[in-house]
Amino acid sequence: MGSKNLAVLGSTGSIGQQALEVVSALSDRFHIVGLAAGKNIDLLAKQISEFKPRFVHCQDKIAHLPGGEYELLSLEEIATHPEVDIVVIATSGKAGLSPTLAAVKAGKKIALANKEALVMAGAIITSEAKLSNARIMPVDSEHSAIWQCLEGEAQPASWLMLTASGGPFHHYSAAQLKEVTVEQALGHPTWQMGEKVTIDSATLMNKGLEVIEAHWLFNMPYDNISVLIHPESIVHSMVEFTDGVVKAQLSYPDMRIPIQYALSYPERLANLQLPRLDWSHIKQLTFEQPDFAAFPCLSLAIEAGKEGGTCPAVLCAADEVAVELFLSRRIKFTDIAYLVEQTLGQHQAIASPALEEIMAADAWARETVLHLTGDNPC
Amino acid sequence: MGSKNLAVLGSTGSIGQQALEVVSALSDRFHIVGLAAGKNIDLLAKQISEFKPRFVHCQDKIAHLPGGEYELLSLEEIATHPEVDIVVIATSGKAGLSPTLAAVKAGKKIALANKEALVMAGAIITSEAKLSNARIMPVDSEHSAIWQCLEGEAQPASWLMLTASGGPFHHYSAAQLKEVTVEQALGHPTWQMGEKVTIDSATLMNKGLEVIEAHWLFNMPYDNISVLIHPESIVHSMVEFTDGVVKAQLSYPDMRIPIQYALSYPERLANLQLPRLDWSHIKQLTFEQPDFAAFPCLSLAIEAGKEGGTCPAVLCAADEVAVELFLSRRIKFTDIAYLVEQTLGQHQAIASPALEEIMAADAWARETVLHLTGDNPC
Repeated sequence: MGSKNLAVLGSTGSIGQQALEVVSALSDRFHIVGLAAGKNIDLLAKQISEFKPRFVHCQDKIAHLPGGEYELLSLEEIATHPEVDIVVIATSGKAGLSPTLAAVKAGKKIALANKEALVMAGAIITSEAKLSNARIMPVDSEHSAIWQCLEGEAQPASWLMLTASGGPFHHYSAAQLKEVTVEQALGHPTWQMGEKVTIDSATLMNKGLEVIEAHWLFNMPYDNISVLIHPESIVHSMVEFTDGVVKAQLSYPDMRIPIQYALSYPERLANLQLPRLDWSHIKQLTFEQPDFAAFPCLSLAIEAGKEGGTCPAVLCAADEVAVELFLSRRIKFTDIAYLVEQTLGQHQAIASPALEEIMAADAWARETVLHLTGDNPC
Repeated sequence: MGSKNLAVLGSTGSIGQQALEVVSALSDRFHIVGLAAGKNIDLLAKQISEFKPRFVHCQDKIAHLPGGEYELLSLEEIATHPEVDIVVIATSGKAGLSPTLAAVKAGKKIALANKEALVMAGAIITSEAKLSNARIMPVDSEHSAIWQCLEGEAQPASWLMLTASGGPFHHYSAAQLKEVTVEQALGHPTWQMGEKVTIDSATLMNKGLEVIEAHWLFNMPYDNISVLIHPESIVHSMVEFTDGVVKAQLSYPDMRIPIQYALSYPERLANLQLPRLDWSHIKQLTFEQPDFAAFPCLSLAIEAGKEGGTCPAVLCAADEVAVELFLSRRIKFTDIAYLVEQTLGQHQAIASPALEEIMAADAWARETVLHLTGDNPC
């Protein structure tokens, strides 16, 4: 097998950096042709020196980048460039939607770490992917686990079980949750991730978004997707089949594992840097039902998913703004769910929206959260 | 898909009866054309009335069978008959070897529940299967789990982890084990099985035999197969790949699940009689290393497997006689391992034996156990 040409969009984020670690460990199999980053210019410059990409995108301060043999392109130009075999979409938030859609329309192989693209525009992305023959390969550990469990099966699954660590506030009461600090919320017990997704893990919004993603990725009705709290984060998700068999995928929580699988698929590549489960130290794997009352974001997300149309985009946008407000210490942890719920409650949903309607709903939701908190919309 | 024609050899045993339950539940997909049993004439007669097979074999008392439209054939004739699509080999002990080998040479699809065939003659059976294009589909829950986890994978596994309930004497000391009774040994905590395999589960010999089977079924070196005690018997086995990913197959302990998978492969069939895991009741899955000192049969089996040649046949035969002696209350529980060890110690192993040499080693081992216990050989 030859080497695959990769473009990593969001290369300076947590997933982007880990994707580049995988590439470094398997440099005979993967070659970086494109890198794109937002504001972390210093790291991007370092990555450019190391990986020598042909195409670069940077959100700002272009002048500060090192000179070299690369072309400056837009995210969409990189995502659709004929020399790119796999587009790794590791940008977080709404910014991932446009390059994802561009890559889908170009029929690319897409290693998708961005949640918002599928949550906001799952119907559009999956129908475009069918037309273009694009292949969306999930990078989230949960969806990667489900994907791996489905490989080689002649029939679709009958049920998906997404596992969740429960986050840092597992077993907290509603009263305790009101008082948690940003520092506590950023201290995830098992996974090392970016700030936004770490807060979303603490509210369980992250798991709710993953339910919506799973719905689109695996064409599974919401009523056949459940969430199971599994504090050890070793079982990354499970799939049930019509004969009662359940398959699970396990590993230590290390994002390089699902990243590498998406890049190497359908092969698996030996990588000694990846940890192997040590069963002499794993004494038990525990499972609990989620506490929907204490963590209302989980139900809000699942309900928005079932409602469909523009609701998931509103959920996503309201959550993004609310998490920013929490991180800047302007609202309480429990206000995140409150603001998302209020915004969804005020939303006039549009069924089967076009992309412009989704973007308008997104903008409306952001404005609404700021109104609700008494801030002026930007 | 049309209906598959099955022959069930050992139809009155535990696995045979459960195979017929699966056939009854999915009667539009499976059709019984052959039944073979040993001594349980009453049950065989009932099965003949219900399933109306065209071919029947019975070890004795032929005259007592009900009249009808069936032909009396030998095990080997049924196992190789052109009208048989899948041969279910559910006979226990050495009796399974000859029909298994006949079915393999005839290039059949074989749902193999008999352990002894592969343990005694794994090299011969697997090389014959390659020549004839026979497909051996394991029915043991552990090997079925591994098989299911390997389906759809582009590369072989790097490690196999066979789970074991630990049996009724899990955590017993060597001193406690000396005093256990037949009744205690037959009380398996999670699986309903025949007497021989229940005692083998209590000594962990069963798991040792399964390690040898796994070696042959999946072409895996012994050093890359480990045993993990998992008292809940929900994870049926696990497979590790080169990228550190582990896949597991889970279900409640119910042999109908792996039996049905072997029969329906590559499809899975909906069967409402099969239990579905209820995650609101599964709180934890626990894992421990096996106690090799208290359960020496496990090491004896693995060592015999590594030694190869006629050693596994001697292990199997010595164990079969020793278990019979224990069940008839003529030796203690711990004498089983002692007799197997002594017999293996006295054996002059033959490397790459022919079938006749394997059968001779088997006969020698049976005689030797009886000599060791002061009985006259039969």
